[in-house]
Amino acid sequence: MQTVTTSSLLHHLQCSHCGHSFDPLPGQTLSVCCQAPLLCCYDLDEHRFSKRELSAGPQSLWRYEKLLPVFQEQNRISLGEGWTPLLPLPRLASDYGLQHLTLKDEGLNPTGSFKARGLCLAISKAKENGEEACIIPTAGNAGVAMAAYCARAGLEAVVVMPRHTPDAFKEECLAYHARLILVDGLINDCAAKVQALNQKSGYFDVSTLKEPYRLEGKKTMGYEIAEQLTWQLPDVILYPTGGGTGLIGIWKAFHEMKALGWLSEHQRFPRMVAVQAENCRPVVDTFHGKQANSKQYVGKPTLANGLAVPRPIGEPLMLTVLRESGGTALAVSEDDMIEGVSELSRREGIFAAPEGGALWAATKQLLRQGWIRPAEQVLLLNTGSGQKYLDNLKGKWRS
Amino acid sequence: MQTVTTSSLLHHLQCSHCGHSFDPLPGQTLSVCCQAPLLCCYDLDEHRFSKRELSAGPQSLWRYEKLLPVFQEQNRISLGEGWTPLLPLPRLASDYGLQHLTLKDEGLNPTGSFKARGLCLAISKAKENGEEACIIPTAGNAGVAMAAYCARAGLEAVVVMPRHTPDAFKEECLAYHARLILVDGLINDCAAKVQALNQKSGYFDVSTLKEPYRLEGKKTMGYEIAEQLTWQLPDVILYPTGGGTGLIGIWKAFHEMKALGWLSEHQRFPRMVAVQAENCRPVVDTFHGKQANSKQYVGKPTLANGLAVPRPIGEPLMLTVLRESGGTALAVSEDDMIEGVSELSRREGIFAAPEGGALWAATKQLLRQGWIRPAEQVLLLNTGSGQKYLDNLKGKWRS
Ligand SMILES: Cc1ncc(COP(=O)(O)O)c(C=O)c1O
Ligand SMILES: Cc1ncc(COP(=O)(O)O)c(C=O)c1O
Ligand SMILES: [Zn+2]
Ligand SMILES: [Zn+2]
Repeated sequence: MQTVTTSSLLHHLQCSHCGHSFDPLPGQTLSVCCQAPLLCCYDLDEHRFSKRELSAGPQSLWRYEKLLPVFQEQNRISLGEGWTPLLPLPRLASDYGLQHLTLKDEGLNPTGSFKARGLCLAISKAKENGEEACIIPTAGNAGVAMAAYCARAGLEAVVVMPRHTPDAFKEECLAYHARLILVDGLINDCAAKVQALNQKSGYFDVSTLKEPYRLEGKKTMGYEIAEQLTWQLPDVILYPTGGGTGLIGIWKAFHEMKALGWLSEHQRFPRMVAVQAENCRPVVDTFHGKQANSKQYVGKPTLANGLAVPRPIGEPLMLTVLRESGGTALAVSEDDMIEGVSELSRREGIFAAPEGGALWAATKQLLRQGWIRPAEQVLLLNTGSGQKYLDNLKGKWRS
Repeated sequence: MQTVTTSSLLHHLQCSHCGHSFDPLPGQTLSVCCQAPLLCCYDLDEHRFSKRELSAGPQSLWRYEKLLPVFQEQNRISLGEGWTPLLPLPRLASDYGLQHLTLKDEGLNPTGSFKARGLCLAISKAKENGEEACIIPTAGNAGVAMAAYCARAGLEAVVVMPRHTPDAFKEECLAYHARLILVDGLINDCAAKVQALNQKSGYFDVSTLKEPYRLEGKKTMGYEIAEQLTWQLPDVILYPTGGGTGLIGIWKAFHEMKALGWLSEHQRFPRMVAVQAENCRPVVDTFHGKQANSKQYVGKPTLANGLAVPRPIGEPLMLTVLRESGGTALAVSEDDMIEGVSELSRREGIFAAPEGGALWAATKQLLRQGWIRPAEQVLLLNTGSGQKYLDNLKGKWRS
């Protein structure tokens, strides 16, 4: 096959803890210095990438190719991910007295969730780096996405998922011919299983933030929000937080855009809100000082299975985002997230995942508390479609 | 609310049987002259709409706004429909010795199928025309789409569906707060139920081709195919055919583009292939002369529930497309469509609806027969995601 070089401006990887630099060589996982996530650093210069070039780019996350880590075109494994719509929510806004309420609908991604973005990049880079088989511990959506991209790339896939995850997640993995391993417990128990398996096997581990590239896929949400709003950022972004890559990635994107000169000098960054489930609220508890960190946190399953991440490795990075942005963290109950899903579908025709429903429930809480003011621009990052959650949602909206 | 006029070039409606013209007034259903579908006719003139304007348009089917029938901007009911990706299928192509195999993935539309396109336009126009409640007989996907757009528009929705349809279709309708009516039988039995209900109620009936606007939504697939392939049409397009709006709509789009001067003089139109299920193959049988028409055809349910349309009102229009284009019609078995779904997911990471799986099965048949030649550009119009069909597909891909 002919080799065509992309225009990636990736320069080096950096330890998120101590700042040490590394070459973006194959096989990078956590930093060797601090066992911390590695972040991709680019040559950020407006002369090398002007936002005026964007309009000619593809209508997918690959429009930001220069700010993505793939070096060879043939390693771009694509299923049409990204460039999802921003939908105004005029009916809910007027029901609750908000003036500018918008939802970014990540349910329109391949495999029905924003996880497609991260796994698209992770698997593209795994291919570029010569990996032949990948493994992932997952709450559900990330596993499905990895299985799809591995199938497309011709890589073997092993997905390790909690046994209680709804069948739709499991079956779709099997459709992609992934090997599926079920574990009693939550995603941290799946992660332990992955480590045990990897004692002997040579699967490349694409766990959240343990390799540097999923984050790069997720950050494209930040670029898209800015571009779709013609470079005027919203006041508040609500994000359903599990491992936190979206939160961290969007924030990284804002900083990169600033360095690129794509945002006006006066542009304030949004206040970032981490929304979790009452059943599993480690970041909320740490943010509000109820614990020093979540290293011992014990969580319970939640309908919003993507939020059931009791001990996220990216917690320090998330806390930085919440604090730097003047944001906050809050948790919603199972009933409230279902009511959120129901209102979004009934009033706006958007069938969101419970994770997305939780955002709307959180918005109402923050509005009642006065933390969100009626005139503010509020953006809900609906991370997935409700489709795969039907077994658990069935019948809940009849009223 | 402020009224902003769109740039729609809609001029009149035309009876598809006798050519008689009608004003596009509210309440238009079948033509009064012939009880035949009405077609939208536009002022097609390159000076009024140049394809160079397109790049600045929205990344949804609304980029073709001038060729769509909505007159007031506030009636555009949008969930981010259309502008779906064209995905090359390099692995399947090389497995089977094809050189140019592409799939348009309509599963990335709102509500997971191409039905979003048609219902987006139908409900936008219903709103524009002052309707307050809509009713639809459906094999599944169209009902879900109507329910979503009605919720978004603030219209009441009544969905009439075969009882054997998988639960996922029913539940999503309920999530949008549609009224759901289950009928023993196929979509023609649902249509009879709709007519009986409408004796007394004033629901607007958005049955396939009984109002003129769903077709306009569907035709945008034809525009997108041309634009995404930079105005070089493929040699063959395979389409899973039930009511046939996609087939008819795509063909209409090609003719409109020709009139607009958007295609080169030498551009040949694709050979259009209607793919049906063995269990319900009315158009195949009529096309091959096994019956004069399908007015008495009796069909059986199929996994590909969108294909279970035994007596399509648009049959004459479909036959014209197949004949004018030099196309053909063929049916595939239940096992073959499942094998098609399985190959698409395993080899290319695309989890298609059985309707999409049927296309790949049909492609292999036509390739074996020599009807498709290895060097031809072949496009599969995958109309939906496999997600809602999981109950019936479960376990089928284990091998
Ligand atoms: C639908 C959905 N929303 C949110 C999340 C949490 O994402 P992150 O781990 O990036 O915080 C997940 C993760 O599984 C998810 O599937
Ligand atoms: C997934 C899918 N494919 C194809 C069809 C057939 O479409 P048409 O009625 O436009 O021929 C349907 C209709 O329900 C469908 O849902
Ligand atoms: Zn370090
Ligand atoms: Zn007539």
